[in-house]
Amino acid sequence: MGNLRKSFSEARCLVIGGGGFIGINLSNALARAGAQVDAYGRRLSIRDSLISGVRWTSADFADRAKLAEAVEHADFVFHLVSSSTPSSANADPAADVMDNLVTTLHLLDICRVQSFGRLVFISSGGTVYGIPSMIPVPETAPTDPISAHGVQKLAVEKYLALYRHLYDLDYLVLRVANPYGPMQIARKSQGVVAALMMRALADEPVEIWGSGDVVRDFIHVQDVVRAILMASLHPGPSRLFNLGSGMGTSIKTVIDDIERVVGRGPLKRIHLPARAVDVPSNVLDIRRIREEVGWQPEIEWMDGLRKTMEWTMNAKENGLI
Amino acid sequence: MGNLRKSFSEARCLVIGGGGFIGINLSNALARAGAQVDAYGRRLSIRDSLISGVRWTSADFADRAKLAEAVEHADFVFHLVSSSTPSSANADPAADVMDNLVTTLHLLDICRVQSFGRLVFISSGGTVYGIPSMIPVPETAPTDPISAHGVQKLAVEKYLALYRHLYDLDYLVLRVANPYGPMQIARKSQGVVAALMMRALADEPVEIWGSGDVVRDFIHVQDVVRAILMASLHPGPSRLFNLGSGMGTSIKTVIDDIERVVGRGPLKRIHLPARAVDVPSNVLDIRRIREEVGWQPEIEWMDGLRKTMEWTMNAKENGLI
Repeated sequence: MGNLRKSFSEARCLVIGGGGFIGINLSNALARAGAQVDAYGRRLSIRDSLISGVRWTSADFADRAKLAEAVEHADFVFHLVSSSTPSSANADPAADVMDNLVTTLHLLDICRVQSFGRLVFISSGGTVYGIPSMIPVPETAPTDPISAHGVQKLAVEKYLALYRHLYDLDYLVLRVANPYGPMQIARKSQGVVAALMMRALADEPVEIWGSGDVVRDFIHVQDVVRAILMASLHPGPSRLFNLGSGMGTSIKTVIDDIERVVGRGPLKRIHLPARAVDVPSNVLDIRRIREEVGWQPEIEWMDGLRKTMEWTMNAKENGLI
Repeated sequence: MGNLRKSFSEARCLVIGGGGFIGINLSNALARAGAQVDAYGRRLSIRDSLISGVRWTSADFADRAKLAEAVEHADFVFHLVSSSTPSSANADPAADVMDNLVTTLHLLDICRVQSFGRLVFISSGGTVYGIPSMIPVPETAPTDPISAHGVQKLAVEKYLALYRHLYDLDYLVLRVANPYGPMQIARKSQGVVAALMMRALADEPVEIWGSGDVVRDFIHVQDVVRAILMASLHPGPSRLFNLGSGMGTSIKTVIDDIERVVGRGPLKRIHLPARAVDVPSNVLDIRRIREEVGWQPEIEWMDGLRKTMEWTMNAKENGLI
């Protein structure tokens, strides 16, 4: 394990899960910061989305030979792979463990024997805590997930700490809240802002699971990516940070605000039953990353929504989504 | 899920891992309490050790069809399977996850769809906490394992809580300290009392990993089994209990005490390097089980050692170990 770099200039960065929402944004930001970036993933979710300076490798996370090759001599490995969502993982937790936890342990075994810098893992600030004992929820709060997705992410965090203890593996965990913004595509039960925006722009009714009083911590992906870059270079003692806006917004409010931003009059609302995997409220306490790393969110919510709308309209026009 | 029974009389009990140290003792105790007991395991570690009233099934935990058949209509399922030790799990955490966590998730899926009572899981009081933040360590202490074995046990605990949340699965977790006593066979890095006793009785030198100042919480298996029976019938709110003696004993003291009990003069001590998986000290706070369940340890340490010696001599004479 080498010493931690002071900048991304010429740094060799591997972004596993580089073809997804955060992965594309992160890969591009790293390339802009001067890094040599390998974006590694099963597929690129939006074509032509990676800037020059990012090399795309289409490969499976479970392909251990390809993975070992990609990790070799990396200064930073960003692990953003998640083949599951809170809903899909619950349907088959054993498969979720096989696809995500076992493969991650293979990655850790590759990292511990190779010449290698720091491993940055994107965890789930929305699910590892379960039903928060306090709002906003600090990193020290109890972790009792109510989704298999959350248990699996938490297990990865524990194995990372273990590999540090046993092998001095340098790692960082970022428990990201609900990111939104450019490159997000609505998947089943994830990407609520993207899903609502798409429907609003298509003049389709929006779906609300439960009462709409469910509160989430939405953070613009540009803020997320800036935090990942800053925290990754940070040598400080903490290995685990919440990463969110620190503010709660209800689903109802999201819909009202999208209605305002889109400006085509009231959206039709369809009410669906509440889901057992949804915690009633989740807002992250972001004092630790603010104080230790010196990062704070910069993109204001309504402004972020406007940017998201512009990107979505553009992407639709160009047939990208 | 049925209502919780008030006694084991006529209760259908499945003991998975029934051929091991705690499994044999538990199966026999359940049969004595009037239960219909199925002991299920890969192999019976000590022949002729199960009393009549216990039916032995030789099968693999990974055999889902056999497992489903065995679980059917059980009032209690005791899950004691552990194919790994703190040392072996670290050597290959991914294999440990496959062998223990994935198989356990299959068990949970079987339990949630079948007519079924309560699932009792034997967790590891010695590893889930990692390096304890306080001694004795209460159930509410942070859980930061320094062994893959500990992470995997902790993950099972989290999935059990999840299955209760999602499917109302009735479960109980017992975080057992270091059990010792009859039916224990020294395995690599486990069963320190059995290992030391065997060597002392064979006039062989004893091995000490590190300084010998490592402190553990030893509890006689008879006390463990009595606690499992009592807690399993207990309807109270807690789903998780520490199960130990509540007292710490150093490895040095264990050796001194075995020397005294065996009474053949000083044992030769061989010093080996300390192991990264060993926490320096672990003593469980047992107030919760004492207060909620009304159980407390009854077998005094020196008396327990004497009983262990008698059993070991007997078993050696009869060629059982």
